[in-house]
Amino acid sequence: MPAALDPRTGLPVVAVVGGGQLARMMQQAAIALGQSLRVLSAGPEESAALVSADVRIGDHRDLGDLRALAEGATVVTFDHEHVPTEHLRTLVAEGTRVAPGPEALVHAQDKLVLRRALREAGEPQPAWVEAHTVHDVTAFADEVGWPVVLKTPRGGYDGKGVFVVHGPDAVAELLERHGTLLAEERVRMVRELSAQVARSPFGQVAVWPVVETVQRDGVCAEVYAPAPGLSDELATAAQELAVRIADRLGVVGMLAVELFQTADGVLVNELAMRPHNSGHWTIEGARTGQFEQHLRAVLDYPLGSTEMVAPAVVMANVLGGAAAREDWSGPALDERIHHLMAHWPDVKLHWYGKTQRPGRKLGHVTALGADLAEARARAVAAARYLADGVVDPAFAFPHDPEH
Amino acid sequence: MPAALDPRTGLPVVAVVGGGQLARMMQQAAIALGQSLRVLSAGPEESAALVSADVRIGDHRDLGDLRALAEGATVVTFDHEHVPTEHLRTLVAEGTRVAPGPEALVHAQDKLVLRRALREAGEPQPAWVEAHTVHDVTAFADEVGWPVVLKTPRGGYDGKGVFVVHGPDAVAELLERHGTLLAEERVRMVRELSAQVARSPFGQVAVWPVVETVQRDGVCAEVYAPAPGLSDELATAAQELAVRIADRLGVVGMLAVELFQTADGVLVNELAMRPHNSGHWTIEGARTGQFEQHLRAVLDYPLGSTEMVAPAVVMANVLGGAAAREDWSGPALDERIHHLMAHWPDVKLHWYGKTQRPGRKLGHVTALGADLAEARARAVAAARYLADGVVDPAFAFPHDPEH
Repeated sequence: MPAALDPRTGLPVVAVVGGGQLARMMQQAAIALGQSLRVLSAGPEESAALVSADVRIGDHRDLGDLRALAEGATVVTFDHEHVPTEHLRTLVAEGTRVAPGPEALVHAQDKLVLRRALREAGEPQPAWVEAHTVHDVTAFADEVGWPVVLKTPRGGYDGKGVFVVHGPDAVAELLERHGTLLAEERVRMVRELSAQVARSPFGQVAVWPVVETVQRDGVCAEVYAPAPGLSDELATAAQELAVRIADRLGVVGMLAVELFQTADGVLVNELAMRPHNSGHWTIEGARTGQFEQHLRAVLDYPLGSTEMVAPAVVMANVLGGAAAREDWSGPALDERIHHLMAHWPDVKLHWYGKTQRPGRKLGHVTALGADLAEARARAVAAARYLADGVVDPAFAFPHDPEH
Repeated sequence: MPAALDPRTGLPVVAVVGGGQLARMMQQAAIALGQSLRVLSAGPEESAALVSADVRIGDHRDLGDLRALAEGATVVTFDHEHVPTEHLRTLVAEGTRVAPGPEALVHAQDKLVLRRALREAGEPQPAWVEAHTVHDVTAFADEVGWPVVLKTPRGGYDGKGVFVVHGPDAVAELLERHGTLLAEERVRMVRELSAQVARSPFGQVAVWPVVETVQRDGVCAEVYAPAPGLSDELATAAQELAVRIADRLGVVGMLAVELFQTADGVLVNELAMRPHNSGHWTIEGARTGQFEQHLRAVLDYPLGSTEMVAPAVVMANVLGGAAAREDWSGPALDERIHHLMAHWPDVKLHWYGKTQRPGRKLGHVTALGADLAEARARAVAAARYLADGVVDPAFAFPHDPEH
């Protein structure tokens, strides 16, 4: 079946399920490629819906909405993992190209499926067990010790659906509430890493340098590229691991392999099969950003160079903070953006256009430099100022109007 | 009057007159700033209309359409110079912020107004005269010699409205057809340069390195950043000239000063008060690209760093060529993009989504590198392949499927 082309441009059409910031940044990359992203958005004020011409309002759990989105599109891809696998199988059976396909995507949707696949592949991962009963968990804890990490197999993200239990007391209630759980050892980790790879249907892969990710309350807060102090051996091992997983699962598009670094090496935490927060630094920090690369991959275009454009790149998320509270009386968003730009003329801002709420991912900033610590200082201070209106004393504004 | 804010995002709203590729690339930059550009487009298939959520179909010469565009917007700016000056004066009188304002913009709209202003300011420019009669032109030619360059004061761009006359014969007909003309000496130039500056209402200015522009048939074909072999003295003089003009005219937003480099220095050719083809290299080649900077300036945000991110950056335009002709039987656009990406994985593509027609600006490519000649070779070969489907023998594909 020849790929459908947009009669207006002569180019293929990418339809994305979900209207969040990932789709928004995909649209930014799409514009350069001559594309006009088609977006299935839950509402007209979602992040991507505010900046896209072809917006379909609908529900990603509704097969009819998904079919309408796919109609005339060359390929369907994703802003998030929450589309029911059976709907994707139906779309594929009806001839729609879905990237990544449902048999790959299920490994990012269902943590038990992932754990089984990694075991079969012999890839490094934490000790784990599928827990149906309290006894399953306590027997597992007898082997690996408390605390044990319980995870809902599906639907969790940004720390949601993850429970650290220090003894059997809370287990029964969690099982009753969530059904089958994945029980994992709590890994003694040095830090968290992320290895990103893009893979095209043709089988071409492209990897970026492995990065360090810093989580706060289960949510990505900072990313350092490249991961400081990571040995070449371990970096290469992590990249090879990511490529093996992408190949074995038949991933099409971006794959982020979230890793725990331990004293002995790396263990796979979980996968994301879409652009990922750990790759936002690539927009300015690499010759090809993850959003452009994702589009290239799902379109089966050749992949772009992943070379870094500066020795060190730091991304800091802007999570809704003090300035997102209803009782905030400091400078409004527009004024904070003014100050940010005045103080950090080379920090790159990405604001997602969302309603501000505490804890919500509202945007991110990226700083490039010769030195990681210096770039980090700028990125973190800029993000903190946007989120909380707080000026770090170490970055006080040079011009005090009172003096 | 407080600036209007978008109630959905809490941010100001930029409305742009015109739906061409400059508005399209402005939208790309707007997305990162949390903005959602409002676009007045002549039709639904214009370059920017294909990628923007808030598109108003209308005529830039119609005051009603302009008023509707401005309604609720923080500021109105431009993709082109063709809006009648009197309409802009009316909008300003009605309280609309227009950037650049009509009293500045008229210098980019009317070449006679520009020439008078530069004479008054004592800035370097070619010898010129306002020509109403054949005698005006022949008397001028007696001073400066033939050929003389005749220009329509308004409406010209990309070589249109410019006539090189080698004697008095053709002059009468041109005057009859176009009315008053601007007559200029034909400058013995070394090459053409462009000095770009952004200026905010607050008066902040930011300059990029001066670039060399190469025109073909009156249309920009290539841009080299920085201009190779340009002395620091002359580069600084050109930047200072651009800043002086921006200040004197009260420009808000981007200003491109197109210059003739001569044996003695530089002469002002013409101005553009918007992002300009000579600045497309800044999207990837400078810390802050001209489209983001234009938005910052018209929003009165502080300006971003203009530092280059590589020693040499080359932009090559893709003008509709052999592959845009109706009788083209070579690879279609989508296939040419495949080959481009396969062969030049680090060349950055910008495709404008337009219908392909010979001579039309369809896109551009940018190559970064340590060496200008090497970057130029890649950019020019990639652009030529997209336009004409021709593979330069010096850049033959390494894998010949026949062998």
